[in-house]
Amino acid sequence: MRIGIDLGGMSAKLGLVNEQNEIVGKLVIPTRLDVPAREMVLDMARAVKTLSAEHGLKPEELEGIGIGSPGTVDQKTGSILYSNNFSWEDVPILDILREDLGPVPMDIANDADAAALGEVCAGAAKGAQNAILLTLGTGVGGGVILDGRIFRGGVAGGCELGHMVIVEGGELCTCGRRGCLESYASASALLRMARKAAAEHPESVMNTMCGGDLEKINGKIPFDAAAAGDAAGCQVVEEYENHLAAGIANLINIFRPEMVILGGGVAAQKENLTAPLQEKVAGMCFGGRHGKIAPIVTSCLGNDAGIIGAANLVGR
Amino acid sequence: MRIGIDLGGMSAKLGLVNEQNEIVGKLVIPTRLDVPAREMVLDMARAVKTLSAEHGLKPEELEGIGIGSPGTVDQKTGSILYSNNFSWEDVPILDILREDLGPVPMDIANDADAAALGEVCAGAAKGAQNAILLTLGTGVGGGVILDGRIFRGGVAGGCELGHMVIVEGGELCTCGRRGCLESYASASALLRMARKAAAEHPESVMNTMCGGDLEKINGKIPFDAAAAGDAAGCQVVEEYENHLAAGIANLINIFRPEMVILGGGVAAQKENLTAPLQEKVAGMCFGGRHGKIAPIVTSCLGNDAGIIGAANLVGR
Repeated sequence: MRIGIDLGGMSAKLGLVNEQNEIVGKLVIPTRLDVPAREMVLDMARAVKTLSAEHGLKPEELEGIGIGSPGTVDQKTGSILYSNNFSWEDVPILDILREDLGPVPMDIANDADAAALGEVCAGAAKGAQNAILLTLGTGVGGGVILDGRIFRGGVAGGCELGHMVIVEGGELCTCGRRGCLESYASASALLRMARKAAAEHPESVMNTMCGGDLEKINGKIPFDAAAAGDAAGCQVVEEYENHLAAGIANLINIFRPEMVILGGGVAAQKENLTAPLQEKVAGMCFGGRHGKIAPIVTSCLGNDAGIIGAANLVGR
Repeated sequence: MRIGIDLGGMSAKLGLVNEQNEIVGKLVIPTRLDVPAREMVLDMARAVKTLSAEHGLKPEELEGIGIGSPGTVDQKTGSILYSNNFSWEDVPILDILREDLGPVPMDIANDADAAALGEVCAGAAKGAQNAILLTLGTGVGGGVILDGRIFRGGVAGGCELGHMVIVEGGELCTCGRRGCLESYASASALLRMARKAAAEHPESVMNTMCGGDLEKINGKIPFDAAAAGDAAGCQVVEEYENHLAAGIANLINIFRPEMVILGGGVAAQKENLTAPLQEKVAGMCFGGRHGKIAPIVTSCLGNDAGIIGAANLVGR
């Protein structure tokens, strides 16, 4: 039995994971941001003990504890180097846990990397040795699995797939550059395009779908509008998918993965999103339609991907 | 002793390489494109015997033979799957060599990948475990070294770094897409920009440097013009470097290598090219100037990189 911890800005989700990669027990504790990092980490240690005890285990009987954390982590030292979600810097999280829990094998990874590993171990890319996860949420995150293991980059802080410029001089990105994939393929970018299109096209059904309040447009509305044949909605979805397809084709040309997994809010569209993307990407990859083009699928573990991936970190 | 073979459209360059990664003997044979592939491969086998014999070795005494080949290679079967340089398809090159040379350990890689490995083993990135080579020639090729080994992509045909779109809808690329790095950062792209600028600016010194014949503009002219303070030359070099920097920053964000090596014709500019690039890239990488940004250097092995890299393929 292993414990995987998906650490987030709101809560830390712990899961006890068995050999079949099933979550047999869960515990969720709030992430306290008003206390020193050390205290919050000790909260996590207590939660590990509680969850283990509920299943008749002592912490030292666990085969491993893995943590997926936002921000930049340093696997070698077991530290969170920096996370803007927590305003933490250089927190030796594994050392603190070991003080309290003893010498259980532990490992840490970026949360998107952990989610990618989870999908490969037990989710949409089960059995794949090489896969890419792109999360389409507030930003565009991602993780790359090579030969069954997380690709962590040559030096710390690698694999920022969302910060690949696809439109030089384009939309301003949160990272300060212009034209990053994130600024065109995140859920936030989709909302920006939908609001603009709705404002420019008063006849668009997107305006009624949001009750006349453009701020209430969500990621589902442009897809629903497109499905209803709304011209502006179709245009937004088409434009969004073209940008996302360009980014995916770039990553396929670079990594040639067996599978591309989409997660995050926009991935709730499932085949509605992946079918047209697959068609677009097929025409964009090097070697053309004859190349081995990875199937594009949506994440199927949802929030559990991070827990299961974290539980699988140790020894990989 | 190992033999590395750098197979090209014009010639196959063989090098006998010692433990110190020095080339102690060389043999160059023409690439015969007018005969069946098998015959050309047997030419290579004969050349291996000749080069070995010149140094008192039998082929079976070699520790390994490695081949860097253009096109798509399949390491598992030791075949060249496809190369438009040779119009070869599915040539089991290692099997043919083994028939003639006996059971010497052999391996094959894409030629750009082999060159990248050569630079890591004995060249500009000596000692690095993670490095990226970009060749700025007719096209933009490249190779990625991860943990000291060539990254070959999840399925065959991976790592087409030049075919990453950086300007959606931009210049048409040889691959059929628009806006690939290759269509902005190859030597061919530099010439295109220089010719356009020279034609638009009759006062530019680039026009006299090419003797009034724009077709004679080479990759050195815009840099020479810029160094002489020519406004149009400066603009061409600035534009070229901006595009190249965008591509390099994308690759740093994805791979976080210890070093980026530039090869191919344009890299002859050395610090003239790398110094401004380093400055531009520093402002583009995720995490800003505080991130660990790889030094950008130029290849120092030249054509020998492919031979030395090929010789180091076996066992990696």
